Amino acid sequence: MIWNKKIECASREEIKELQLVKLQKTIKNVFDNVPYYSKKYTEYEIYPEDIETLKDIEKLPFTTKDDLRESYPFGMFAVDRKKIIEVHSSSGTTGKPVVSGYTSKDIENWGEVIARGLTMMGADDEDIIQNTHGYGLFTGGFGVHYGSHKIGATIIPISTGQSRRQIEIMKDFGTSIMIFTPSYGMYLAELAEEENVDFNNLNLKAIGFGAEIWTDEMRKSIEKRFKAPAYNIYGLTELMGPGVAVECKIQEGLHLQEDFFYPEIIDSESGNTLNEGTEGELVLTNLEREGMPLIRFRTKDITTISYAECECGRNTARIERITGRSDDMIKVKGVAVFPSQIEKALLKIDNIEPHYQIIVTRPHLMDEIEVKVEASQNLFSDDVKEMINIKQKIEDYIFNEIGLRVKVSLVSPKSIPRSEGKAVRVIDKRNLH
Amino acid sequence: MIWNKKIECASREEIKELQLVKLQKTIKNVFDNVPYYSKKYTEYEIYPEDIETLKDIEKLPFTTKDDLRESYPFGMFAVDRKKIIEVHSSSGTTGKPVVSGYTSKDIENWGEVIARGLTMMGADDEDIIQNTHGYGLFTGGFGVHYGSHKIGATIIPISTGQSRRQIEIMKDFGTSIMIFTPSYGMYLAELAEEENVDFNNLNLKAIGFGAEIWTDEMRKSIEKRFKAPAYNIYGLTELMGPGVAVECKIQEGLHLQEDFFYPEIIDSESGNTLNEGTEGELVLTNLEREGMPLIRFRTKDITTISYAECECGRNTARIERITGRSDDMIKVKGVAVFPSQIEKALLKIDNIEPHYQIIVTRPHLMDEIEVKVEASQNLFSDDVKEMINIKQKIEDYIFNEIGLRVKVSLVSPKSIPRSEGKAVRVIDKRNLH
Repeated sequence: MIWNKKIECASREEIKELQLVKLQKTIKNVFDNVPYYSKKYTEYEIYPEDIETLKDIEKLPFTTKDDLRESYPFGMFAVDRKKIIEVHSSSGTTGKPVVSGYTSKDIENWGEVIARGLTMMGADDEDIIQNTHGYGLFTGGFGVHYGSHKIGATIIPISTGQSRRQIEIMKDFGTSIMIFTPSYGMYLAELAEEENVDFNNLNLKAIGFGAEIWTDEMRKSIEKRFKAPAYNIYGLTELMGPGVAVECKIQEGLHLQEDFFYPEIIDSESGNTLNEGTEGELVLTNLEREGMPLIRFRTKDITTISYAECECGRNTARIERITGRSDDMIKVKGVAVFPSQIEKALLKIDNIEPHYQIIVTRPHLMDEIEVKVEASQNLFSDDVKEMINIKQKIEDYIFNEIGLRVKVSLVSPKSIPRSEGKAVRVIDKRNLH
Repeated sequence: MIWNKKIECASREEIKELQLVKLQKTIKNVFDNVPYYSKKYTEYEIYPEDIETLKDIEKLPFTTKDDLRESYPFGMFAVDRKKIIEVHSSSGTTGKPVVSGYTSKDIENWGEVIARGLTMMGADDEDIIQNTHGYGLFTGGFGVHYGSHKIGATIIPISTGQSRRQIEIMKDFGTSIMIFTPSYGMYLAELAEEENVDFNNLNLKAIGFGAEIWTDEMRKSIEKRFKAPAYNIYGLTELMGPGVAVECKIQEGLHLQEDFFYPEIIDSESGNTLNEGTEGELVLTNLEREGMPLIRFRTKDITTISYAECECGRNTARIERITGRSDDMIKVKGVAVFPSQIEKALLKIDNIEPHYQIIVTRPHLMDEIEVKVEASQNLFSDDVKEMINIKQKIEDYIFNEIGLRVKVSLVSPKSIPRSEGKAVRVIDKRNLH
């Protein structure tokens, strides 16, 4: 089923026409109502009437997370605060928190994009959705919640934690769709194994993943454990929350909701717009947001975009699974390394678990990477020679992936701390800041 | 302002007429659609057509938490599970969890009752509501959330925890209404004091309290600390969640939403219905719930009911602040003791903090109560004689309240564990079960 055929299956021409009208309206709106934009655009000598084609968006300056921080808390709102009915916020662990405000219409639209996404995953009003995303200032829990209400599924707003109870509820309530971060999913899978849960006897038919970068190999590993297909959900607090793009059953990229978000791919260094199919940083513009429309927001997420028609019947643009972020990318010996590359290498090897930690140090003016990897219980009980072989193999695979020699340490099963939210993959001890 | 004048200011006759129509419909509905009720009513030989007046409800047997546990998880639903869009559940720490299912209409009604309650507290679309109630299977967070959306206020769904950030957000966002449990409120007040926050400089205009039993003295203490009036919110997961009854500005009892809940006060032992003004156990019947209508549900909460008109202009029945529960009541030496009685005594005395713990033991076939109470920093630095005097005074005050001699121990400031949710007031070591 397709939730909103009119939009999701519209022709490219229709989509572009719609986008242009919405873009012009949005630029006029922020110019008139948000001092940050009017000041900046006046400075750049760009005015709403200069936006005559979609391509003209490239004349506009980018908006960054820092701009949002400087306007903390409510400086980016385009409407009277009274019209804002809900506020979310990032955790602010890396500086001033970023605030996101929603009008009643924005909350409705948030439900709409998630409704489309859940439908892509095969969900309908028969489904029982167990939402392990945290509710709170974090947008994860609420997005899925509003979308589930919209399609009339049964939502279990269990939120993160209470992990043994999560498994009990999957069994007792007959959960048909699980929503989790990949790392929390892995954690639940381990608990389920300990308790000898056989997923063949459960009712699970799909998994929705979000809020973390993951590899296709991780997907396969999760699908194998949970015996259900897993679909990628992409989003970010600044633009709306989860639902910006979601994967369909074809699992070849995430359909972006182009009537709400206008996407560009840019070169992170030069800021130049890149062509379809070229990897770069995703830049998004809100096309219909009332509370806090962002223009050319630099997501820092690295991906590519495709406008090709999808086998599922939807015509909306698709972005590739995010393969890294332009900021949590680690530069080691001048080489850009993404944790996802390391993960990809690890998942090719048997007898190790996809639990790892990357530790970057600079002992003698030179960067060094150590990758701690959990050996399986089998391997760990085995003889030392086998372990040395595997260690060597992992080092080779990682070299193949990132072009750098790293030191691999095999650690005992479950010795790397589990996260109930986002996993801490990289520990940078170089003190570069 | 009054949110729904038509209902809230209706005459007693109009309310009773409406209730009878809804009650008859509900009884027919559960008889036809919930096997638990049809079986039980057939057994008691009572049929929907026997309910000719409101008084006839007394012919029907009670529903208890145990009945709900036996039908775990979905046995009490009156509609096809497909129509249920949200499920909440108690924690299940004292047995099988109790599940509560909501249809789309039920969620709307939940928003309506909280909208009425928030309006009673003086909230409108100008307000910023900081909701520290937890979101998840617990109903606290969501009830307030839906109600806030309904009145168009700005909700900050921060949930419990992140306590220092709570205070930062109160300051930065200009929170005008705080929602917390009394014990979490006390905890936040302490943090705010540590950080020298002056509530006179903040924007706070009201506090909504819920989910815990508290005394009027505790209210006064909180109002003094936060420099804002505090209003009681009552509710329970089984019936809907918070919002069943809320206090108006007059602060003389909580207005019960009589078009959604039919109240009775019964004698806990005999089950007989008691008159207006007589203290007993509150029994509630859902009058408009689709998902899981409960008939004569024994809340175990002890209160009285009044049908007198309220100065605020509303005519809906009012229940007294809950003074105890028929089940967490401690029976000591044959005497019923409620933690709230102990708290009431403590709050009359200077130089002690309203943080306490009641420990019940049975060392030699006889019950003994020890009450641990925190002394203030002042008192603790004082001479011993003063402490002995205060200790004696507390013991006298408690004796005056409960008619039993207890042993009081003064402990150092902040030595009793703080709770971020519901406080653990009673530790019963008698092993009576």
